[in-house]
Amino acid sequence: MTVERTRVAIVGAGPAGLLLSHLLAAAGVESIVVDARSRQEIETTIRAGILEQGTVEVLDGIEGSRARTVGHRHDGIELRFAGEGHRIDFPSLVGRSVWLYPQHEVLKDLIAARLAAGQDLRFSTSVTAVHDVDSEPRVAGTDADGAPFEIRCDFVVGADGSRSVVRPAIAGDRGNGAFREYPFAWFGVLCEAAPSSDELIYSNAPDGFALISQRSETVQRMYFQCDPSTDPDAFSEAEIWDALQRRVPGTRLTEGPIFQRDVLRFRSFVAGGLRRGRAALVGDAAHTVPPTGAKGMNLAIADVLLLGDALRRLLVEHDERGIDAYAETALRRIWKAQHFSWWMTSMLHAVPGSDAFDRQRQLGELRSVIESEAGQRFLAEAYTGWPLPSSF
Amino acid sequence: MTVERTRVAIVGAGPAGLLLSHLLAAAGVESIVVDARSRQEIETTIRAGILEQGTVEVLDGIEGSRARTVGHRHDGIELRFAGEGHRIDFPSLVGRSVWLYPQHEVLKDLIAARLAAGQDLRFSTSVTAVHDVDSEPRVAGTDADGAPFEIRCDFVVGADGSRSVVRPAIAGDRGNGAFREYPFAWFGVLCEAAPSSDELIYSNAPDGFALISQRSETVQRMYFQCDPSTDPDAFSEAEIWDALQRRVPGTRLTEGPIFQRDVLRFRSFVAGGLRRGRAALVGDAAHTVPPTGAKGMNLAIADVLLLGDALRRLLVEHDERGIDAYAETALRRIWKAQHFSWWMTSMLHAVPGSDAFDRQRQLGELRSVIESEAGQRFLAEAYTGWPLPSSF
Repeated sequence: MTVERTRVAIVGAGPAGLLLSHLLAAAGVESIVVDARSRQEIETTIRAGILEQGTVEVLDGIEGSRARTVGHRHDGIELRFAGEGHRIDFPSLVGRSVWLYPQHEVLKDLIAARLAAGQDLRFSTSVTAVHDVDSEPRVAGTDADGAPFEIRCDFVVGADGSRSVVRPAIAGDRGNGAFREYPFAWFGVLCEAAPSSDELIYSNAPDGFALISQRSETVQRMYFQCDPSTDPDAFSEAEIWDALQRRVPGTRLTEGPIFQRDVLRFRSFVAGGLRRGRAALVGDAAHTVPPTGAKGMNLAIADVLLLGDALRRLLVEHDERGIDAYAETALRRIWKAQHFSWWMTSMLHAVPGSDAFDRQRQLGELRSVIESEAGQRFLAEAYTGWPLPSSF
Repeated sequence: MTVERTRVAIVGAGPAGLLLSHLLAAAGVESIVVDARSRQEIETTIRAGILEQGTVEVLDGIEGSRARTVGHRHDGIELRFAGEGHRIDFPSLVGRSVWLYPQHEVLKDLIAARLAAGQDLRFSTSVTAVHDVDSEPRVAGTDADGAPFEIRCDFVVGADGSRSVVRPAIAGDRGNGAFREYPFAWFGVLCEAAPSSDELIYSNAPDGFALISQRSETVQRMYFQCDPSTDPDAFSEAEIWDALQRRVPGTRLTEGPIFQRDVLRFRSFVAGGLRRGRAALVGDAAHTVPPTGAKGMNLAIADVLLLGDALRRLLVEHDERGIDAYAETALRRIWKAQHFSWWMTSMLHAVPGSDAFDRQRQLGELRSVIESEAGQRFLAEAYTGWPLPSSF
């Protein structure tokens, strides 16, 4: 078995793990990043992506990032309900915007930049266990050739997504933490068509929620609320278009061949612990949010800015205060983002079993928000992103 | 049986019915107001009262109103959670305030003013049925001496509270409308003591909600969350003070003899119809809100401003458009207020059966509001009152 040493072992080559390796390298701290997936799998799994302005600014600091140039700036979203459309104009409300730039494109940029910078980045490398996080952490696994390895390190970071193998070593029995499963899902499609709108439309319709999103000039991403047990293959294309169209009355959707379909379950989750000894969690390993608030990747970036600075202070300056404060500080933003994601979800979806009070209250809530500059601004602040940790 | 005629028969001498008679008189429209209760009962039943600034401005127009002079202006409230207190400063956020002035004092003012103006105002007069609201309405009942009477009118208004006898004639089978019962109640006390704080404290504590309110320099009103089945006599005074004190950590409550105690159940309700033919509902007859948002009396005043103008147009100008729009227009404000009341309630109470996600999300929500000027302003706009119909 190979035994190696590094300062920080990063498990997971998603946006969080890759950005962390960049921040650590900038601080002169060596790291190894491992991921069980192949590079091709990471780069070709199509993922959504709304980037907060702060996230784009962080990515601007990375050589070759195309988020600002290839991504599309969106200056607002539309909230549609009760047959009316109401635009939330981000620049006039908060002086910020968001960028539509898919997560797999972010990953291509980050992987290219890290490899160009000489980062030790290992694909198809599975971690099976994490040991001794209270003293001298060891990461054990199997490399791309199936050979066992061990990495000894000063610190180990779980950036390995919602099925994190690092999490149990940190959160232990509390790994389940706080959890919520929602009684609905999104039926998502990718289709070959021109955009049906310039900006995202979040629609609360009597039949349920729909989100009209974009991917490029020729490919669109759309979703409609469905039962979590829905079989993605149970609908004909005509039925899918009918379901989408009925939920955005007032807009004529541009139809086209549907080449991918999936059912996304809705969950909220926060791990019972984010840090233990010489180990910490970031991104989806630490928390899951439903996609309605577009917070997933952005929250991972915020975690990493905080942890990157804490690790620099710990490993370069031998100052424990940053890492000791990491969990509490990160959790403040995480729970605000959890609330925002829950709020957007509960305000926009038709909740199974809801009664007349629930439905009318929901419309009263939407009306309260759109009739108030403060209400719109409160929403826009969260959607475009609260200020990021200034450590970068 | 006495048979009389008036233009508008108003059932209920609460704030809504009395104000409506004032508005109609100002427009030259005669009315009769009847109430099943005695004048003494109406004037001595101690009721809470936070008046929106707009409500105080309406009352300013009534000869002898003491709301602005005897009432106490409050420029903010405190939200307390996670051991921290956060003041919401109304004037700096929205340029408005609220007034603490109990509802029974408002009623004393309105009754005195209406009687001085020669209003036909009949106490201890029970309405038993309302007939023919689609054509020529008749109100049947029993007068203070037990004799039957009938009032024939052009329009009948149900301002007779949550157990309205007018409502079935308007909302029919839909009388139940939208309804929500909450799994908690408020244990309320009146005590002889100096104020514990200058402004209201809304506290979300691990044990549950508490509201520290005031009545005068020597009498205070306080509430703590309890189970709806709680027997008000089951607590000793020491237990009550302990329950209150534990829910406002950081404040030393000034204790004193408790001379009234009650358990207030929490309900939200909107009638299935607010108007039919020549009849309409206002105030608690049309809707109930939980007290957390302090909206009850203010919402009644807003209904009456709208209906008063609609009746003036109908009965003086023979223009049906105001009355035809009444229900839809009133319901927009009612459902915003229902949402606000539900929001304040759900954000501040410990909900039985809630799990770790619910509790942490609630704290994330409170933190989102108090960390954002827009969030605070959104709350303050609703608490101090959205703009009233300008018909007065």
